[in-house]
Amino acid sequence: MNHLVIMAGGVGSRFWPMSTPECPKQFIDVLGTGRTLLQLTVDRFRDVCPVENVWVVTSVRYRDLVREQLPGIPSDNILLEPCMRNTAPCIAYVTWKIKQRDPEAVLVISPSDHIVLDTAEFVRVVRKGVAFVSAEERILTLGMVPTRPETGYGYIQVKPQGTLHEGEIRDVEAFREKPDLATAQAYLSAGGYYWNAGIFLWNIRTVEKAFRDNCPAIAAVFDRLEPAFFTPQEQEEVNELFPTCPSISIDYAVMEHARNIFVFPASFGWSDLGTWGSLYEQIPRDAAGNAVVGAGVRMVESGGCVVHVPAGRRMVVQGLQDCIIAESDGVLLICRKSDEQRIKEFSAALNA
Amino acid sequence: MNHLVIMAGGVGSRFWPMSTPECPKQFIDVLGTGRTLLQLTVDRFRDVCPVENVWVVTSVRYRDLVREQLPGIPSDNILLEPCMRNTAPCIAYVTWKIKQRDPEAVLVISPSDHIVLDTAEFVRVVRKGVAFVSAEERILTLGMVPTRPETGYGYIQVKPQGTLHEGEIRDVEAFREKPDLATAQAYLSAGGYYWNAGIFLWNIRTVEKAFRDNCPAIAAVFDRLEPAFFTPQEQEEVNELFPTCPSISIDYAVMEHARNIFVFPASFGWSDLGTWGSLYEQIPRDAAGNAVVGAGVRMVESGGCVVHVPAGRRMVVQGLQDCIIAESDGVLLICRKSDEQRIKEFSAALNA
Repeated sequence: MNHLVIMAGGVGSRFWPMSTPECPKQFIDVLGTGRTLLQLTVDRFRDVCPVENVWVVTSVRYRDLVREQLPGIPSDNILLEPCMRNTAPCIAYVTWKIKQRDPEAVLVISPSDHIVLDTAEFVRVVRKGVAFVSAEERILTLGMVPTRPETGYGYIQVKPQGTLHEGEIRDVEAFREKPDLATAQAYLSAGGYYWNAGIFLWNIRTVEKAFRDNCPAIAAVFDRLEPAFFTPQEQEEVNELFPTCPSISIDYAVMEHARNIFVFPASFGWSDLGTWGSLYEQIPRDAAGNAVVGAGVRMVESGGCVVHVPAGRRMVVQGLQDCIIAESDGVLLICRKSDEQRIKEFSAALNA
Repeated sequence: MNHLVIMAGGVGSRFWPMSTPECPKQFIDVLGTGRTLLQLTVDRFRDVCPVENVWVVTSVRYRDLVREQLPGIPSDNILLEPCMRNTAPCIAYVTWKIKQRDPEAVLVISPSDHIVLDTAEFVRVVRKGVAFVSAEERILTLGMVPTRPETGYGYIQVKPQGTLHEGEIRDVEAFREKPDLATAQAYLSAGGYYWNAGIFLWNIRTVEKAFRDNCPAIAAVFDRLEPAFFTPQEQEEVNELFPTCPSISIDYAVMEHARNIFVFPASFGWSDLGTWGSLYEQIPRDAAGNAVVGAGVRMVESGGCVVHVPAGRRMVVQGLQDCIIAESDGVLLICRKSDEQRIKEFSAALNA
């Protein structure tokens, strides 16, 4: 059976004040569609796996947000991390737990705060990917065909002399961290480099073996916790033992050591919505180029602005060019779009 | 005895959204001092007349606002207009009512939404003015010594060959409406022109006679109402008869016909705060020239802005020049300071 694992524990700071530690980006209707990014993530897997096979790993502090936003998910499927230990312990926890229910499971690991515009192509790729990894010890990543020399993403480089599997899946040579502009341009010219979308497919046995081989300390923690899974004692024991895991990402813990890694190059209108600029690209714009989420906003003689305010906020913006205007929970930010990388600084100014 | 009459029925639209028909400018802490303009008006007369001699004429809709903001004023002294009939009926009503209590009263008629920075000089001028009109049939206006060719104020022209009374009071030649810039500049060059601050001093007999001579229709209405004053029936009868008054300003009804009019030229840091620009001039500015009312506002790389938001609003403004940012009651306006005369249009855009 296919299982979807959504990692929803992130605390985005780049979208402050829309996104706050109390309610990060994945729990927000960022696009103004009426669905949060987390809900959209579940929605697009609707034809890939049944809702009882959807698992969400998040922080204890977001338990109620997840339950409210995904009322169809069994509460057993909402896993609560007592503290942040990066992605490797998070994936091990959910893998060990699913293993108890369905040792033949194929897992699709997905971020909770990205968007996909072409759901049909997305579903085709994921289904084919699931078939590719279900019976073999393979780790499949999804690689986005790059459309610009983006410096905000990691890249996956394919093996130049590698084999073409199933007509479109390639062997991975290496993972490349976020490049500078010249390097990103060289990647695009060279070809064979894809954006790392952070989506992984593998079966339970492959994940388990990868942890036992490369990260035995983490495997040991969840071996100890296993008897408590699906019992009233689970959370208490997790609270005690989860913090003893090393804080390490799945990339460092597993990917860098594995040899059986593949990439599925694809184009399904993906964005990690990592910046206001990328959000601006994804929201429908008015004739003056304003991307506005907020039914009560009127733009007058303003252009190139991105506005994200609560639906009930009534606002007139006149004479502004290329600004970010964002409001959430009583905090308002007005700043230049070109200065969005300084948002942490602006946030700090408020609390100074 | 001296009585202060505050006209507090105005519905300012130029300061939207800070000022709204539900809560106009006079009821707002515009300067961020912790006192509303109405409260500041009463405060600065503290040494001129006792609080039981303070009268407020306002609209029925603002009754609760006045009571809340001026808890020391006897409720008999709060006069409620059932509808707007401009300033002449308003002044007649309060005059007829005070006459019943104190026929020897001297009235100081004052707007509720102006500011005065030099209270000591203000008190000196008002006291001297009261003495000037108490025993004589005289109407005394306060004329502000102009410091710039302001086109937003009316002017009072002194009689070139007139007498100097009490060393500083002049005879009035004419009232001049808001001039264009060239005319305003000519006024300044010529001398003998003063800004009309909308403050009048006269005794009860003078006011009554002025109405009987020039506006007998209004006098007749309040003659009829007189028996109901200070009784439980007063409001009901006022509600019935007040609307029968012609809608006319005190200037047209009385001032233009009177001959015994004087002006007291003075300088006590007066402003009618009629525009965001004039408010900007009156609020202390930071090093970058931002005039900010709102404890939770942080200005970053912004200059020449005027900001007026509720104390609890947390806001960062970065990279804006010469803008107005105003919020009240869930409505936010961001616009260019140079376009402030279009605020009605911006307000309409929101309701379109």
